[in-house]
Amino acid sequence: MKQLGVGLIGSGFMGRCHAVAFRAAPGLFDLPTEPTLELLADVDEQVAKEAARRLGFARSTGSWRALIEDRAVGLVDVTTPTFLHEEMVRAAIAAGKDIYCEKPLAPNAATALALVEAAEVAGVKTMVGFNYLKNPITALAREIIASGEIGALIGFRGIHAEDYMADPATPFSWRLDPANGPGAIGDLGSHIISLARYLMGDIEAVCGETTTVVAERPVAPGSSERRAVEVDDQTQALVRFACGARGTLEASWVASGRKMQLAYEISGSRGSLAFTQERFNELKLSTAGQSRGRDGYKTIIAGPDHPAYEAFCPAPGHQLGFNDLKTIEVRDLLVGLAGGSPPWPDFREAWQVQRVVDAVVASAAEGRWVPIAEI
Amino acid sequence: MKQLGVGLIGSGFMGRCHAVAFRAAPGLFDLPTEPTLELLADVDEQVAKEAARRLGFARSTGSWRALIEDRAVGLVDVTTPTFLHEEMVRAAIAAGKDIYCEKPLAPNAATALALVEAAEVAGVKTMVGFNYLKNPITALAREIIASGEIGALIGFRGIHAEDYMADPATPFSWRLDPANGPGAIGDLGSHIISLARYLMGDIEAVCGETTTVVAERPVAPGSSERRAVEVDDQTQALVRFACGARGTLEASWVASGRKMQLAYEISGSRGSLAFTQERFNELKLSTAGQSRGRDGYKTIIAGPDHPAYEAFCPAPGHQLGFNDLKTIEVRDLLVGLAGGSPPWPDFREAWQVQRVVDAVVASAAEGRWVPIAEI
Amino acid sequence: MKQLGVGLIGSGFMGRCHAVAFRAAPGLFDLPTEPTLELLADVDEQVAKEAARRLGFARSTGSWRALIEDRAVGLVDVTTPTFLHEEMVRAAIAAGKDIYCEKPLAPNAATALALVEAAEVAGVKTMVGFNYLKNPITALAREIIASGEIGALIGFRGIHAEDYMADPATPFSWRLDPANGPGAIGDLGSHIISLARYLMGDIEAVCGETTTVVAERPVAPGSSERRAVEVDDQTQALVRFACGARGTLEASWVASGRKMQLAYEISGSRGSLAFTQERFNELKLSTAGQSRGRDGYKTIIAGPDHPAYEAFCPAPGHQLGFNDLKTIEVRDLLVGLAGGSPPWPDFREAWQVQRVVDAVVASAAEGRWVPIAEI
Amino acid sequence: MKQLGVGLIGSGFMGRCHAVAFRAAPGLFDLPTEPTLELLADVDEQVAKEAARRLGFARSTGSWRALIEDRAVGLVDVTTPTFLHEEMVRAAIAAGKDIYCEKPLAPNAATALALVEAAEVAGVKTMVGFNYLKNPITALAREIIASGEIGALIGFRGIHAEDYMADPATPFSWRLDPANGPGAIGDLGSHIISLARYLMGDIEAVCGETTTVVAERPVAPGSSERRAVEVDDQTQALVRFACGARGTLEASWVASGRKMQLAYEISGSRGSLAFTQERFNELKLSTAGQSRGRDGYKTIIAGPDHPAYEAFCPAPGHQLGFNDLKTIEVRDLLVGLAGGSPPWPDFREAWQVQRVVDAVVASAAEGRWVPIAEI
Repeated sequence: MKQLGVGLIGSGFMGRCHAVAFRAAPGLFDLPTEPTLELLADVDEQVAKEAARRLGFARSTGSWRALIEDRAVGLVDVTTPTFLHEEMVRAAIAAGKDIYCEKPLAPNAATALALVEAAEVAGVKTMVGFNYLKNPITALAREIIASGEIGALIGFRGIHAEDYMADPATPFSWRLDPANGPGAIGDLGSHIISLARYLMGDIEAVCGETTTVVAERPVAPGSSERRAVEVDDQTQALVRFACGARGTLEASWVASGRKMQLAYEISGSRGSLAFTQERFNELKLSTAGQSRGRDGYKTIIAGPDHPAYEAFCPAPGHQLGFNDLKTIEVRDLLVGLAGGSPPWPDFREAWQVQRVVDAVVASAAEGRWVPIAEI
Repeated sequence: MKQLGVGLIGSGFMGRCHAVAFRAAPGLFDLPTEPTLELLADVDEQVAKEAARRLGFARSTGSWRALIEDRAVGLVDVTTPTFLHEEMVRAAIAAGKDIYCEKPLAPNAATALALVEAAEVAGVKTMVGFNYLKNPITALAREIIASGEIGALIGFRGIHAEDYMADPATPFSWRLDPANGPGAIGDLGSHIISLARYLMGDIEAVCGETTTVVAERPVAPGSSERRAVEVDDQTQALVRFACGARGTLEASWVASGRKMQLAYEISGSRGSLAFTQERFNELKLSTAGQSRGRDGYKTIIAGPDHPAYEAFCPAPGHQLGFNDLKTIEVRDLLVGLAGGSPPWPDFREAWQVQRVVDAVVASAAEGRWVPIAEI
Repeated sequence: MKQLGVGLIGSGFMGRCHAVAFRAAPGLFDLPTEPTLELLADVDEQVAKEAARRLGFARSTGSWRALIEDRAVGLVDVTTPTFLHEEMVRAAIAAGKDIYCEKPLAPNAATALALVEAAEVAGVKTMVGFNYLKNPITALAREIIASGEIGALIGFRGIHAEDYMADPATPFSWRLDPANGPGAIGDLGSHIISLARYLMGDIEAVCGETTTVVAERPVAPGSSERRAVEVDDQTQALVRFACGARGTLEASWVASGRKMQLAYEISGSRGSLAFTQERFNELKLSTAGQSRGRDGYKTIIAGPDHPAYEAFCPAPGHQLGFNDLKTIEVRDLLVGLAGGSPPWPDFREAWQVQRVVDAVVASAAEGRWVPIAEI
Repeated sequence: MKQLGVGLIGSGFMGRCHAVAFRAAPGLFDLPTEPTLELLADVDEQVAKEAARRLGFARSTGSWRALIEDRAVGLVDVTTPTFLHEEMVRAAIAAGKDIYCEKPLAPNAATALALVEAAEVAGVKTMVGFNYLKNPITALAREIIASGEIGALIGFRGIHAEDYMADPATPFSWRLDPANGPGAIGDLGSHIISLARYLMGDIEAVCGETTTVVAERPVAPGSSERRAVEVDDQTQALVRFACGARGTLEASWVASGRKMQLAYEISGSRGSLAFTQERFNELKLSTAGQSRGRDGYKTIIAGPDHPAYEAFCPAPGHQLGFNDLKTIEVRDLLVGLAGGSPPWPDFREAWQVQRVVDAVVASAAEGRWVPIAEI
């Protein structure tokens, strides 16, 4: 089988998650190419070496530029902090390499658009890691909507709330640096926005409110030196969809007690759907016209009748885990790179998500509705 | 024991619910006065007669004015459509009678304020039927907040969604008539607004979006004649609380599949609460500082340790029902009328709720944030 | 309307609950007779007097015999500890009075049968307070089974577990006195057995295991004097139904953390049902033959389409409470006494339940399956 | 790093699941040896070849004997139908190879014991695939029990119910052939028995009831020829633990609607635990002594504070999937083979589980309690 050399930049949470997915995909899916873990780059050469060993990469380097230039690397996989994406992505485009980049693609929509255009001009293929879109049960939700089972879409209620920054003693990190773009709305909000677009279609306008609840944080764990937080940690927005539906979008990384409240509720004229990533192998569905005295929400459990599930297990109810979603993403990427359905979500879709993020922030700053077209 | 003659105007869903509560309260609570079901008025004398028999009232009348003037009636209980409240309430005030009125008090805040002032000048006592405030488990939520157990309040996510108007074939009713005020945001939204105020304190400003999803409806069941719907049936709003917290408020009566999604989630700096009326004997509580590997949301079940529960049952987990909440409301009313803690929520509080309703509607019309102080 | 004088013996948890139900029923249901709270008896005349005042009874007495003989008392309502039932019931039968008795009817099946026969010979009507049978959503479960929607019955999994005796410091009470019959299996177990019979039909045989987890308890709160516990506090049994289904029955009053785990799961050849009193306005239903990729358990919410619900509220999802179930029971009683559907469950049904209780205990003692016919 | 050649016999559901786990483990855990997918055997050489390609094995064979003899194979991994285990395992023992075998180890306890003894005499290491034991949240449950947080164990309520055989049209398969041992109690029941032993300790005696609900099935999909089913498809048992606790065990593969009801509830003298594989990243915990009005079950979400979770994801609430449990099992296996904590559950533990299965079946046949020591 044809092989594809993967060059991974970054070896943190997401770098590791990508490596695991590249290793797992070939044993689960019939793939057109076989990914090989060729080269891993991290800013510190020693860290890179150790990470390469641990994650199963053949070689390591302290230079991401060397990685991009490496002949054996066919796919550049970027999992660094956001502010570094642009330079790396541009270099990869210049080298004619296909690109797999973690979300958010860029700190703002303008940069994202520049990358979209550069990639499209160069003809390189791209994908951005919005892995929650790959959940079979969310694919089912999309299928239910498309089939008309819940009628015309009228309402959306979406949130992504976690509590990993809830403790004021949690120190500064790159996610809090404005160089990486907005805060919770960019980091977590982009997930629920991508889901909103996937399920409901284009967003026309938003009206947002951003808050910085924890005003300053230690510069490092245990440090008494503090740095002011300039990005949002809790954000809400009203949203208007092109299809006519209305709704809300929320993001918070200071939602005490919440570990993974990435949830949506969708109202249609003839039914509704409810989902939370907290129980992400389940989808609640109610449809109009059920028999009297027997109506209610049905809890559908993910199983082999839903897209991609069967690759993991032939039996329903056995459940996928978080890493499995990434593995489905990698499958889609490899299929797309080999000429199948184009990789998706690509840079252009990531730009669309980023536009909504930016519109929420602009709206909050200006206290008014902001059409996405303005961004 | 001293007796209090109750005069009930209206015999629909809420009229019946009030009658049941007045009958039940004396057997459950040690009351300062004994309510007697003295007189029932409905617009049609025959309907009134039959309702009086069914609900256990001693007498009936086709004239609500006669009811208010009746010597045996000490408390005027108004459960008619909203647009009728003003005239009745003014007459009761004029007659020096205490008043128990269903929510919303008035079609708009201006009218509500006029009634507040008239009642206060006349010195009559008032109460408005926001019965969900009387839930022992919500009283517990308030107590938890007040005690500081979840720290400073930072976020609120509230909704009241039902589906009783989801079917476009459901005909026009008084709730759809603009004479009664806004639609879903007034009818259902006022419940979640009253809860928001009860738990979070004053609201400073809102930014809303109202929608009329079902544009026209049959004028009567099965009729082919249609009437345009002018009020909202699905509304969302951003909200700023005086305490600094931010959040969202939503209301819909076209939320297919939802029977009673009156729900709130409250984020504090050191914990959080989650509640839904769908399981209204339960409260979820998470607090900071739980032991490692053992942290999580606790599901507290209503029991005799929570306010008012024990009157219904000495054992926890046996559960209160919807009518029981109304019975607690009646208890509070009777205690207040007899000189105990003043009846609450009173007309003034109902006006505060109505101001928020009106502000959401104004905000939606003007596409901007509206301070409550403007209303 | 014809009146029925109620004479209540006992004023504890259940006495109060009965009084509340008698007060509530006439305002909710169209009843053939109007119950009047005529006379309340408690062993201590002062207690009786105070309870009568509190619960709304016209008169009180320290003599239950006087109550039974009282001309104004048409219905004798027995809510005393079990061991007292026999004498009272026999006296009521002798006086030709109809009887409403709390469960369990008697400490053992033999006594229960004697009372059944005496009542039937005398022609007095009887009812026993298995109020959980009156839940509209359980009535729905029965209707679903009867309709064949889940096919032939094959399995039953039932439990009633609470924790009100879990703390070893909780003192002795009459429920622990063997004079009142078995322990948890009689007190709580009789509820799940009555539900099992209601939903699944006759039980043919059981094989049980009884345990006394807390071997001794203080004789009174805080006392250092202890008394050995001779009855079971945790019991399990295998069960064979006449319909061919097999299953388990469990009862515990030492189930730490459980407040009201009265739950059943029913397997049929073409579907299944799951219920717990912890969320007793909900029923889960799964049926065979759902469309592919859309199958799952449906959560049906109690509403006006289900038996008796509408009397309490015209809107679905508003929820009944514990006391409402008792009120439905009282409705059935009054209708039955007036010549409608006979009151049910009657003494005979209570005897059937007691036979199963006794069979479990016998089985545990002898380490073998015990056919109910032996008891 | 040292390599370990894996020889896999069988390429069905479990064969594939093992291969996936062997591929995933090295990227997730720091392992002492690197497993290589050396050789795959299936009864049909063509099937073997295709499976080897698909699952990533270097070579394939139609002869499992050849696999066992192969020099490159250090670990023999058996995933065939149960009745084939004995011959394969004996051959592997004879060849001095370590063995990883799917559950159940053998059709009956006697055979299992013979294999235990043979393996122990030969000094080969063994492991049996009870993967649900590897769930971090169940490891947490065990830790909670061991720490005394819920006091002394008093009750257990366990079940494993699915519906994959609920449809009478589902044809015969090897699981229904008595040559592979009992039916549901062996196939699914062994999972809940292994969990019971893991959490509660040794079982002393059982009293069971086995049923064959679907008496005959098509010999093949769509065939009109039918074969009688001789094994149980629904079984219940009472159980006595050595620690003094009492409880129930249930197994069914005809539980319509259930996809993965592998659930346990554990009562302790000072708390309780509840778990279901349907939401297997959650554990419910209640402990005695919570503050008044604030007590309830806590829902603990799996996270990096729980054993093995962090290898998959550094963030809580992201969730493991079914395959991840197998990967943890493989980690334990590889660590054990390399001289770390011995692989567990080993053949001896599998024999203990099988004894309980056999005791349930014997008990059902004889209608009496059967001590495990008899088996």
